[in-house]
Amino acid sequence: MDRPSGCAPLLVIGSVALDSVSTPFGEATDMLGGSAVYFALAASLFVPVSIVGVVGTDFRDSHLALLRSKGVDLQGLQRVPGLTFRWGGKYGYDLNQRETLFTELNVFEQFKPTLPECYRDTPFLFLGNIDPDLQGFVLDQLRAPVIVAGDTMNFWIEGKRESLMSVVSRLDVLMLNDSEARLLTGEPNLVRAARQVLSRGPKSVVIKKGEHGAMMLLPEGCFFAPPFPLELVVDPTGAGDTFAGGFMGYLAGCDVVGEAELRRAVMYGSVVASFSVEDLGVRRLAALTREEVEGRAMEFGKMTILDLPRGREIPLETT
Amino acid sequence: MDRPSGCAPLLVIGSVALDSVSTPFGEATDMLGGSAVYFALAASLFVPVSIVGVVGTDFRDSHLALLRSKGVDLQGLQRVPGLTFRWGGKYGYDLNQRETLFTELNVFEQFKPTLPECYRDTPFLFLGNIDPDLQGFVLDQLRAPVIVAGDTMNFWIEGKRESLMSVVSRLDVLMLNDSEARLLTGEPNLVRAARQVLSRGPKSVVIKKGEHGAMMLLPEGCFFAPPFPLELVVDPTGAGDTFAGGFMGYLAGCDVVGEAELRRAVMYGSVVASFSVEDLGVRRLAALTREEVEGRAMEFGKMTILDLPRGREIPLETT
Repeated sequence: MDRPSGCAPLLVIGSVALDSVSTPFGEATDMLGGSAVYFALAASLFVPVSIVGVVGTDFRDSHLALLRSKGVDLQGLQRVPGLTFRWGGKYGYDLNQRETLFTELNVFEQFKPTLPECYRDTPFLFLGNIDPDLQGFVLDQLRAPVIVAGDTMNFWIEGKRESLMSVVSRLDVLMLNDSEARLLTGEPNLVRAARQVLSRGPKSVVIKKGEHGAMMLLPEGCFFAPPFPLELVVDPTGAGDTFAGGFMGYLAGCDVVGEAELRRAVMYGSVVASFSVEDLGVRRLAALTREEVEGRAMEFGKMTILDLPRGREIPLETT
Repeated sequence: MDRPSGCAPLLVIGSVALDSVSTPFGEATDMLGGSAVYFALAASLFVPVSIVGVVGTDFRDSHLALLRSKGVDLQGLQRVPGLTFRWGGKYGYDLNQRETLFTELNVFEQFKPTLPECYRDTPFLFLGNIDPDLQGFVLDQLRAPVIVAGDTMNFWIEGKRESLMSVVSRLDVLMLNDSEARLLTGEPNLVRAARQVLSRGPKSVVIKKGEHGAMMLLPEGCFFAPPFPLELVVDPTGAGDTFAGGFMGYLAGCDVVGEAELRRAVMYGSVVASFSVEDLGVRRLAALTREEVEGRAMEFGKMTILDLPRGREIPLETT
């Protein structure tokens, strides 16, 4: 992977935001958030990562300092006059249902980034959930990406389907949640929906099912990652972006990318996301260490193992 | 396991019914059904199984003949004057939502079985979803059961909680679906709900999550079985009972029961249930072979494996 030394192997384009979140377990206003931020904090556990995004003059230096302290390259993060993108959401006790209270695009509305020259040879690219035309515009600027993954949302599936499908056809990995997969294909069965997506070009599709785990479909195989058995979920905001960050961060640290690496990437994505939801906003992610990730990854691997030594333990008494 | 030779190692008590089911993919009236029937057909793929239940004079000989042809012992199946238990249900395209059209208890209403003497030494017992007082009454008649598993439903959780908890405390394995687990404990988080159930006596709890797989919690561990990636689900009726039948059938064929066996039992339960839902009623189960089960079990095992040889395949081109 020929790239200028000092340039991060992984690039994310997405929102950098100030989030206001209310959950039954706590609430906070104008927290550091946005898809590119969750992604970068997760990915930086594995490799250095660059962010392409935009913030306003109200964005705090302490937020920039936090990202830099994690090895995040901010050359591609523009700071322009105006207010930072803001999002507000509210969760009830069923954390699967959330209500968006407001979305203020602000400086994001006019965002059309030209990549810094040294970013154009980045091998791993993640196209966060933004206008598919903008996703394509960024992808066009990369000279020879090795793995390109992308995300989207209902808003673009419904409003810009043609542009979206054109980007989708150029992806190595498309990430969707279950409702997006159904909406994109009109197919209620998730396996058939995923196969239909594969037929449109991506080499793999990852379906994030939140508290039900994640499924990856390749042309020749299927991998299933269970949900990590969490006893407390505080704030699911950013879980999908965190998953993507763990997934791409792990891959960007691999010498080759085959099915084995993709499976482990899904597992690492799930593990990092399982930490992220344990506290409000990016709090848990900001304090997370690679050691903690590896510890939970080990437990994770044990959760689905079928070939334990037979009869090693007898938890059920034979009265 | 001292038992009279010729007596099945596994006993199920539950409903034997005539089901009328309507789905977007087909419908049928007065089909062979009931929890004990789905259970027995699934379990008989592994070991001989005995049914304790009751039918009316309208129950067809061909149904009895089908069960006998699968090695099901019917000494404990009473045939009494009156009509057989009938259930009618309807599914829409979202097969997770079903509408019960009618439930006619008929001969089941007065059912209070005294077990045939040779059943009283059966080592493996499954208490299907019936009145918990009746579950206790049957359990009392077994001299020295090795593994007792049980099922229940919202109706008993809401209406006979005290009786139910008394039976639950005597179980080795309690099987619940996710909504039952939440209702029983008042705890929305499934992991905490499962732990709370464990504290009430059962040595393990299996939470069936339908299209999202199954989770087993032991005091010292957690196992997760993914859903089998089905492209067509025709009729989910009896899937939970089929799961239980595959689970207990597999265990009843093991020499010892430890965590390894319990994990495999969850896997076999999931596999057999994945076949059952592919056709109306018990059609698919009635034709299912052990070879087919083992074939899908093999695929099932591959779905969660993390330690594929690294870089063996490169499905994603490195351009």
